Amino acid sequence: MRLTTFTDYALRALVYLATNDKRRVTKQDIADAYGISLHHVAKIAQRLAQNGYVEARRGREGGLRLAMDPSEISLGCVVRDFEEFGLVECFRGEENQCPIAPTCGLIPILGEAVEAFCSVLDRKTLADIVSGPRKAAEYRRHFLVE
Amino acid sequence: MRLTTFTDYALRALVYLATNDKRRVTKQDIADAYGISLHHVAKIAQRLAQNGYVEARRGREGGLRLAMDPSEISLGCVVRDFEEFGLVECFRGEENQCPIAPTCGLIPILGEAVEAFCSVLDRKTLADIVSGPRKAAEYRRHFLVE
Repeated sequence: MRLTTFTDYALRALVYLATNDKRRVTKQDIADAYGISLHHVAKIAQRLAQNGYVEARRGREGGLRLAMDPSEISLGCVVRDFEEFGLVECFRGEENQCPIAPTCGLIPILGEAVEAFCSVLDRKTLADIVSGPRKAAEYRRHFLVE
Repeated sequence: MRLTTFTDYALRALVYLATNDKRRVTKQDIADAYGISLHHVAKIAQRLAQNGYVEARRGREGGLRLAMDPSEISLGCVVRDFEEFGLVECFRGEENQCPIAPTCGLIPILGEAVEAFCSVLDRKTLADIVSGPRKAAEYRRHFLVE
Protein backbone atom coordinates (compact mmCIF):
# COMPACT_ATOMS: atom_id res chain seq x y z
CA MET A 1 0.00 0.00 0.00
CA ARG A 2 1.51 3.26 -1.13
CA LEU A 3 0.51 6.86 -1.12
CA THR A 4 1.31 8.65 -4.37
CA THR A 5 4.59 10.54 -4.60
CA PHE A 6 2.45 13.67 -4.92
CA THR A 7 0.98 13.20 -1.41
CA ASP A 8 4.28 12.02 0.06
CA TYR A 9 6.07 15.16 -1.16
CA ALA A 10 3.19 17.45 -0.18
CA LEU A 11 3.45 16.23 3.40
CA ARG A 12 7.22 16.69 3.34
CA ALA A 13 6.96 20.19 1.89
CA LEU A 14 4.58 21.11 4.71
CA VAL A 15 7.00 19.70 7.29
CA TYR A 16 9.78 21.78 5.78
CA LEU A 17 7.63 24.91 5.84
CA ALA A 18 6.50 24.27 9.42
CA THR A 19 10.13 23.97 10.52
CA ASN A 20 10.87 27.32 8.91
CA ASP A 21 7.90 28.92 10.61
CA LYS A 22 7.40 32.40 9.17
CA ARG A 23 10.56 32.44 7.05
CA ARG A 24 10.03 32.33 3.32
CA VAL A 25 11.68 29.41 1.59
CA THR A 26 12.17 28.65 -2.08
CA LYS A 27 11.01 25.61 -3.99
CA GLN A 28 14.69 24.89 -4.60
CA ASP A 29 15.29 24.79 -0.81
CA ILE A 30 12.63 22.08 -0.49
CA ALA A 31 13.90 20.16 -3.51
CA ASP A 32 17.46 20.23 -2.13
CA ALA A 33 16.43 19.23 1.39
CA TYR A 34 14.80 16.02 0.22
CA GLY A 35 16.79 15.35 -2.94
CA ILE A 36 13.68 15.55 -5.11
CA SER A 37 13.13 17.32 -8.41
CA LEU A 38 12.28 21.01 -8.58
CA HIS A 39 9.60 20.17 -11.12
CA HIS A 40 7.80 17.99 -8.56
CA VAL A 41 8.10 20.61 -5.86
CA ALA A 42 6.70 23.28 -8.19
CA LYS A 43 3.58 21.21 -8.90
CA ILE A 44 3.09 20.48 -5.21
CA ALA A 45 3.60 24.09 -4.18
CA GLN A 46 1.01 25.19 -6.71
CA ARG A 47 -1.57 22.78 -5.32
CA LEU A 48 -0.69 23.67 -1.71
CA ALA A 49 -1.24 27.33 -2.55
CA GLN A 50 -4.49 26.65 -4.44
CA ASN A 51 -5.84 24.75 -1.44
CA GLY A 52 -4.92 27.52 0.98
CA TYR A 53 -2.19 25.76 2.94
CA VAL A 54 0.63 27.87 1.58
CA GLU A 55 1.16 31.49 0.65
CA ALA A 56 3.34 31.92 -2.43
CA ARG A 57 4.93 35.27 -3.28
CA ARG A 58 6.84 35.95 -6.46
CA GLY A 59 9.97 38.05 -6.90
CA ARG A 60 13.19 38.81 -5.09
CA GLU A 61 11.66 38.77 -1.59
CA GLY A 62 9.34 35.99 -2.62
CA GLY A 63 9.02 32.37 -1.68
CA LEU A 64 6.69 30.06 0.16
CA ARG A 65 5.44 30.00 3.71
CA LEU A 66 2.56 28.40 5.56
CA ALA A 67 -0.69 30.32 5.26
CA MET A 68 -1.86 29.06 8.65
CA ASP A 69 -0.54 27.68 11.90
CA PRO A 70 0.66 24.02 11.73
CA SER A 71 -1.93 23.17 14.40
CA GLU A 72 -4.66 24.25 11.97
CA ILE A 73 -3.50 22.03 9.10
CA SER A 74 -5.30 18.70 9.35
CA LEU A 75 -3.33 15.81 7.88
CA GLY A 76 -6.63 14.20 6.92
CA CYS A 77 -7.51 17.23 4.80
CA VAL A 78 -4.10 17.26 3.11
CA VAL A 79 -4.24 13.56 2.28
CA ARG A 80 -7.82 13.81 1.02
CA ASP A 81 -6.84 16.85 -1.11
CA PHE A 82 -3.78 15.19 -2.66
CA GLU A 83 -4.34 11.47 -2.71
CA GLU A 84 -6.10 9.33 -5.29
CA PHE A 85 -7.77 6.43 -3.54
CA GLY A 86 -7.65 3.97 -6.44
CA LEU A 87 -7.10 1.13 -3.99
CA VAL A 88 -7.78 -1.77 -6.33
CA GLU A 89 -8.57 -1.93 -10.05
CA CYS A 90 -12.34 -1.49 -9.66
CA PHE A 91 -11.79 1.82 -7.79
CA ARG A 92 -10.07 3.19 -10.91
CA GLY A 93 -13.06 3.71 -13.21
CA GLU A 94 -11.68 3.57 -16.73
CA GLU A 95 -9.07 0.98 -15.89
CA ASN A 96 -11.55 -1.50 -14.45
CA GLN A 97 -11.96 -4.83 -16.19
CA CYS A 98 -13.40 -6.82 -13.30
CA PRO A 99 -16.81 -8.11 -14.41
CA ILE A 100 -18.28 -8.21 -10.92
CA ALA A 101 -17.48 -4.62 -9.93
CA PRO A 102 -21.08 -3.28 -9.96
CA THR A 103 -22.19 -5.58 -7.15
CA CYS A 104 -18.93 -6.65 -5.55
CA GLY A 105 -18.97 -6.89 -1.76
CA LEU A 106 -15.28 -6.03 -1.50
CA ILE A 107 -15.76 -2.42 -2.59
CA PRO A 108 -17.71 -1.14 0.44
CA ILE A 109 -15.39 -3.05 2.79
CA LEU A 110 -12.28 -1.43 1.30
CA GLY A 111 -14.12 1.91 1.33
CA GLU A 112 -14.69 1.53 5.06
CA ALA A 113 -11.01 0.67 5.59
CA VAL A 114 -9.90 3.78 3.65
CA GLU A 115 -12.23 5.90 5.75
CA ALA A 116 -10.70 4.47 8.95
CA PHE A 117 -7.24 5.33 7.55
CA CYS A 118 -8.28 8.92 6.86
CA SER A 119 -10.10 9.26 10.19
CA VAL A 120 -6.83 8.74 12.07
CA LEU A 121 -5.28 11.53 9.99
CA ASP A 122 -8.31 13.77 10.58
CA ARG A 123 -7.40 13.76 14.28
CA LYS A 124 -3.78 14.82 13.60
CA THR A 125 -2.28 18.08 12.44
CA LEU A 126 1.01 19.21 10.96
CA ALA A 127 1.93 20.35 14.49
CA ASP A 128 1.73 16.72 15.67
CA ILE A 129 4.46 15.79 13.19
CA VAL A 130 6.98 18.45 14.10
CA SER A 131 6.30 19.00 17.82
CA GLY A 132 8.36 17.68 20.72
CA PRO A 133 11.77 19.13 21.65
CA ARG A 134 13.89 16.33 20.15
CA LYS A 135 11.99 16.17 16.89
CA ALA A 136 11.84 19.96 16.54
CA ALA A 137 15.62 20.21 17.02
CA GLU A 138 16.23 17.50 14.41
CA TYR A 139 13.95 19.19 11.90
CA ARG A 140 15.69 22.52 12.47
CA ARG A 141 19.11 20.91 12.09
CA HIS A 142 18.19 19.50 8.69
CA PHE A 143 15.73 21.97 7.28
CA LEU A 144 16.16 25.45 8.76
CA VAL A 145 16.95 28.11 6.18
CA GLU A 146 19.51 30.57 7.58
CA MET B 1 -3.40 5.01 -2.31
CA ARG B 2 -3.18 1.63 -3.97
CA LEU B 3 -2.85 -1.94 -2.86
CA THR B 4 -0.37 -3.93 -4.91
CA THR B 5 -1.69 -5.96 -7.84
CA PHE B 6 -0.57 -9.01 -5.87
CA THR B 7 -3.03 -8.29 -3.04
CA ASP B 8 -5.79 -7.17 -5.41
CA TYR B 9 -5.60 -10.43 -7.38
CA ALA B 10 -5.26 -12.55 -4.22
CA LEU B 11 -8.55 -11.14 -2.94
CA ARG B 12 -10.18 -11.74 -6.31
CA ALA B 13 -8.89 -15.31 -6.52
CA LEU B 14 -10.39 -15.97 -3.08
CA VAL B 15 -13.74 -14.51 -4.20
CA TYR B 16 -13.69 -16.77 -7.23
CA LEU B 17 -12.88 -19.82 -5.09
CA ALA B 18 -15.57 -18.95 -2.53
CA THR B 19 -18.16 -18.71 -5.31
CA ASN B 20 -17.15 -22.17 -6.48
CA ASP B 21 -17.42 -23.56 -2.98
CA LYS B 22 -16.02 -27.10 -2.95
CA ARG B 23 -15.53 -27.40 -6.73
CA ARG B 24 -11.95 -27.46 -7.91
CA VAL B 25 -11.04 -24.70 -10.34
CA THR B 26 -7.95 -24.15 -12.43
CA LYS B 27 -5.62 -21.19 -12.42
CA GLN B 28 -6.68 -20.65 -16.02
CA ASP B 29 -10.35 -20.35 -14.90
CA ILE B 30 -9.35 -17.55 -12.53
CA ALA B 31 -7.15 -15.83 -15.12
CA ASP B 32 -9.97 -15.96 -17.70
CA ALA B 33 -12.63 -14.73 -15.27
CA TYR B 34 -10.74 -11.53 -14.51
CA GLY B 35 -8.77 -11.11 -17.74
CA ILE B 36 -5.45 -11.32 -15.89
CA SER B 37 -2.30 -13.26 -16.76
CA LEU B 38 -1.92 -16.93 -15.87
CA HIS B 39 1.58 -16.13 -14.65
CA HIS B 40 0.16 -13.72 -12.04
CA VAL B 41 -2.48 -16.21 -10.94
CA ALA B 42 0.14 -18.95 -10.55
CA LYS B 43 2.24 -16.80 -8.22
CA ILE B 44 -0.81 -15.85 -6.18
CA ALA B 45 -2.10 -19.43 -5.99
CA GLN B 46 1.28 -20.55 -4.70
CA ARG B 47 1.26 -17.98 -1.91
CA LEU B 48 -2.40 -18.69 -1.07
CA ALA B 49 -1.52 -22.38 -0.72
CA GLN B 50 1.65 -21.68 1.32
CA ASN B 51 -0.38 -19.57 3.74
CA GLY B 52 -3.05 -22.25 4.15
CA TYR B 53 -5.96 -20.46 2.47
CA VAL B 54 -6.06 -22.75 -0.54
CA GLU B 55 -5.58 -26.43 -1.21
CA ALA B 56 -3.82 -27.12 -4.51
CA ARG B 57 -3.87 -30.57 -6.09
CA ARG B 58 -1.88 -31.50 -9.19
CA GLY B 59 -2.95 -33.74 -12.04
CA ARG B 60 -6.02 -34.52 -14.07
CA GLU B 61 -8.49 -34.24 -11.17
CA GLY B 62 -6.44 -31.42 -9.70
CA GLY B 63 -7.02 -27.74 -9.22
CA LEU B 64 -7.56 -25.23 -6.45
CA ARG B 65 -10.19 -24.93 -3.78
CA LEU B 66 -10.49 -23.13 -0.47
CA ALA B 67 -8.87 -24.93 2.43
CA MET B 68 -11.33 -23.43 4.90
CA ASP B 69 -14.77 -21.91 5.07
CA PRO B 70 -15.02 -18.34 3.70
CA SER B 71 -16.24 -17.22 7.15
CA GLU B 72 -12.88 -18.33 8.58
CA ILE B 73 -10.76 -16.33 6.14
CA SER B 74 -10.05 -12.93 7.65
CA LEU B 75 -9.52 -10.20 5.09
CA GLY B 76 -7.14 -8.52 7.52
CA CYS B 77 -4.95 -11.65 7.55
CA VAL B 78 -4.96 -11.89 3.75
CA VAL B 79 -4.03 -8.24 3.29
CA ARG B 80 -1.30 -8.43 5.96
CA ASP B 81 0.06 -11.62 4.30
CA PHE B 82 0.12 -10.19 0.79
CA GLU B 83 0.56 -6.44 1.03
CA GLU B 84 3.72 -4.39 1.36
CA PHE B 85 3.01 -1.34 3.45
CA GLY B 86 5.62 0.95 1.93
CA LEU B 87 3.31 3.90 2.34
CA VAL B 88 5.80 6.68 1.75
CA GLU B 89 9.49 6.65 0.80
CA CYS B 90 10.78 6.35 4.37
CA PHE B 91 8.76 3.14 4.89
CA ARG B 92 10.72 1.53 2.08
CA GLY B 93 14.11 0.98 3.76
CA GLU B 94 16.66 0.88 0.96
CA GLU B 95 14.84 3.41 -1.16
CA ASN B 96 14.72 6.05 1.56
CA GLN B 97 16.60 9.30 0.97
CA CYS B 98 14.72 11.49 3.42
CA PRO B 99 17.29 12.84 5.90
CA ILE B 100 14.82 13.20 8.75
CA ALA B 101 13.43 9.64 8.70
CA PRO B 102 15.00 8.40 11.97
CA THR B 103 13.09 10.93 14.08
CA CYS B 104 10.23 11.98 11.79
CA GLY B 105 6.87 12.42 13.50
CA LEU B 106 4.96 11.47 10.36
CA ILE B 107 6.02 7.82 10.50
CA PRO B 108 4.13 6.78 13.67
CA ILE B 109 1.06 8.75 12.52
CA LEU B 110 0.96 6.94 9.17
CA GLY B 111 1.62 3.66 11.01
CA GLU B 112 -1.44 4.29 13.16
CA ALA B 113 -3.52 5.04 10.05
CA VAL B 114 -2.40 1.79 8.38
CA GLU B 115 -3.31 -0.11 11.53
CA ALA B 116 -6.81 1.44 11.48
CA PHE B 117 -7.13 0.38 7.83
CA CYS B 118 -6.17 -3.20 8.66
CA SER B 119 -8.37 -3.29 11.78
CA VAL B 120 -11.48 -2.78 9.65
CA LEU B 121 -10.40 -5.73 7.51
CA ASP B 122 -9.66 -7.84 10.60
CA ARG B 123 -13.37 -7.64 11.43
CA LYS B 124 -14.40 -8.87 7.96
CA THR B 125 -14.14 -12.24 6.30
CA LEU B 126 -14.33 -13.59 2.76
CA ALA B 127 -17.94 -14.56 3.56
CA ASP B 128 -18.78 -10.85 4.06
CA ILE B 129 -17.72 -10.17 0.46
CA VAL B 130 -19.77 -12.86 -1.24
CA SER B 131 -22.80 -13.17 1.05
CA GLY B 132 -26.28 -11.78 0.42
CA PRO B 133 -28.67 -13.30 -2.13
CA ARG B 134 -28.20 -10.69 -4.86
CA LYS B 135 -24.42 -10.63 -4.62
CA ALA B 136 -24.16 -14.43 -4.41
CA ALA B 137 -26.29 -14.79 -7.56
CA GLU B 138 -24.13 -12.27 -9.44
CA TYR B 139 -20.94 -14.01 -8.41
CA ARG B 140 -22.33 -17.36 -9.50
CA ARG B 141 -23.47 -15.92 -12.83
CA HIS B 142 -19.96 -14.66 -13.60
CA PHE B 143 -17.68 -17.11 -11.87
CA LEU B 144 -19.31 -20.50 -11.39
CA VAL B 145 -17.44 -23.33 -13.09
CA GLU B 146 -19.90 -25.80 -14.61
